[in-house]
Amino acid sequence: MKLDFDCVVVGAGIAGMTAAIYLKRSNLNVLILDNDAPGGLLNKISVVENYPGFTKISGPDLAYKIYEQVNNLGIEIRYGKVIDIKDHQVITDLETITTKKIILAIGRKTRKLENTNNLKNVSYCAVCDANLYKNKTVAVVGYSNSAMEEALYLSDICQKVIIIGRGSDFKGEATLAEQIKNKSNIEIQLDCVIKTLSSDNDILNKIITNKGDFEVDGMFVAIGYEPNTEFLKDITKDNGYIIVDNKMKTNIDYIFACGDIIKKDVYQLTTAVGEATIAAINVKKEIN
Amino acid sequence: MKLDFDCVVVGAGIAGMTAAIYLKRSNLNVLILDNDAPGGLLNKISVVENYPGFTKISGPDLAYKIYEQVNNLGIEIRYGKVIDIKDHQVITDLETITTKKIILAIGRKTRKLENTNNLKNVSYCAVCDANLYKNKTVAVVGYSNSAMEEALYLSDICQKVIIIGRGSDFKGEATLAEQIKNKSNIEIQLDCVIKTLSSDNDILNKIITNKGDFEVDGMFVAIGYEPNTEFLKDITKDNGYIIVDNKMKTNIDYIFACGDIIKKDVYQLTTAVGEATIAAINVKKEIN
Repeated sequence: MKLDFDCVVVGAGIAGMTAAIYLKRSNLNVLILDNDAPGGLLNKISVVENYPGFTKISGPDLAYKIYEQVNNLGIEIRYGKVIDIKDHQVITDLETITTKKIILAIGRKTRKLENTNNLKNVSYCAVCDANLYKNKTVAVVGYSNSAMEEALYLSDICQKVIIIGRGSDFKGEATLAEQIKNKSNIEIQLDCVIKTLSSDNDILNKIITNKGDFEVDGMFVAIGYEPNTEFLKDITKDNGYIIVDNKMKTNIDYIFACGDIIKKDVYQLTTAVGEATIAAINVKKEIN
Repeated sequence: MKLDFDCVVVGAGIAGMTAAIYLKRSNLNVLILDNDAPGGLLNKISVVENYPGFTKISGPDLAYKIYEQVNNLGIEIRYGKVIDIKDHQVITDLETITTKKIILAIGRKTRKLENTNNLKNVSYCAVCDANLYKNKTVAVVGYSNSAMEEALYLSDICQKVIIIGRGSDFKGEATLAEQIKNKSNIEIQLDCVIKTLSSDNDILNKIITNKGDFEVDGMFVAIGYEPNTEFLKDITKDNGYIIVDNKMKTNIDYIFACGDIIKKDVYQLTTAVGEATIAAINVKKEIN
C-alpha cells in the first residue's frame, strides 16, 4: 500500500521544524501538521539570548527564520488538529493522512498565571531570562520542584528572590527545599495567595498578597506545564510526557517524539533541536 | 582553597562555546581554553544548511556569530594546549589553572585525504552536503561503516554513488554492506587506490585510480575521524571517544564532556548544542 507520506511531523515548533528540515534534506516525503502558527512556544518568548548563533533575538523572529528555512526546502505544512493516531494513520479534524513514520513534536504549554498577559516583566523561564534581572529583586510564583529550581537559579544572579507559594510547604525534593532555606537572599512566603498585581505601563511593580505587598522588578511563574497527550492512548507516558529511548523512539514502532513533549531533564531550544535531529536521522535509517 | 574558576571549558567549537554561554548566564566564573581559533570544525565547513535559524550560512560565519555571543557575555578565552588534567588542575603548555569543574568539548578531526585542501567540491559530511549533489554523480572514499552510511545516505539523493575503497571488502556491519549491494545506483570499487585527483579551477572532476577513471560532480571522504584524547589518561573511553552518562558526566566526578568528542550515534551541530546545554546545566546544579 502506498502511504501518503514517509513521515508526518506533528507540531511546527522548533523541534518539529528541525526534524522536518533533516527529513526533507534526506529526500523523504515529509509533512508538518499543526493547528497553530509555526513557532510553537517560541512565539511566546520575548527575548532569546541562549540559542547559539544569535546574541539576542525575539522568539517570534527566531521562529520565523526557521520557518523560512522550512519553506525554502519546499516542506509542506498543513493546518490540522490531531485527534487520533492509529495504524499508520494521523486523523485530524479535517482529514486522515497515512504515513510510514510519525514524529510527535507537539510541545507543551506553560500553565499561565491569570491576569499577566500584558505584563512585560513576567517570565516563565529562569534559565532564559534571569540575566535580565541581575542584582534586582524578583518573585517566583509556585512551590513545586520547578519553582524551587527557578528560585535557586535566580538566587545566584538576582539580589533577592521572593518565593510566593500557595501551599503550606514545598511540594518536591527535600534537598531542594533544604538548599532554598540555606540561601540568605531567598525569602520564602508560603500559604501566600496573590490578590492583585500592580503595574505601571504594563511593567509589574508590586505583588499584593494575603501575606503583604512585595515590590519586585520581575516575576517568574513556575506553576507547572501542561503536556496535552491525552489523545495518544497507546503511547507510554509519565505524567503526560512521552517516554522515548535514545533514538527518540516511543513504545510504538513507527512513532518517534522529540522536544518539550518528551520526558527528560532539560527543556531548552538547544536540546529540542538535538533530539529532533536524532529522531529524524533514525526515521531515515529505518525507512532505508 | 579558592580555585581560579568554577568551570573551565576545553575547546572553543560550537559545543564549548554553547556550554560557556549557559555557564556564564547562570553566573558562574567560566574560562574557555583552546589552541586554535574559536569555531572548531565549523571553520572547515563551507556551507551549513541544517542548523535551525539559518537557511544558508558558511561555517566560519556561524562560528563568528557564536563567538560574538561569547564575547558579548564577557566570557574569557585563553590560548593554551591542554597537556594534562588532574586534581582539578588543567595543565596547558603555558600555565596551570585550577577549577571546580571541567567540560571537555575538544571535538575531533576528520582524517583528511591528501591533496584535497584546495578542492571546493570535496565534503566530509553527507548529511550536511548531500543536498548540493541532488541527481548528480558523487564518489565516496572509504570502506568502513561511516563510508557505507554516507554512500547509502547519498544514494537516495544523488543519481549515482561510486564507492572507492582501498580494502578488499567492506569493514563494518554486514547489514550495511548488504544494503549497499542492493542499491542499483551504487557502484562498488574495492581494492581501489586513488592515483590522482583531476580538477579544473579547483573543482574536482575526475578520480584516477588503479581500477579506472571516474568522472564525478563531487567527492565525499569518509576515511574516519581522529579523536585526540590520549592525554586524558584516567577518563573512560571507547576507541578514543569519551563515555558520558545522560548528564554528560564522565567517570571522573568533576569532568563533563559534550560534542563530537563523546561516544554517541549522531554527530551534528544540533546535537552538540543540546549536549553542551545539558553539561552546563548539570555543572551548575552540582556547584549549587
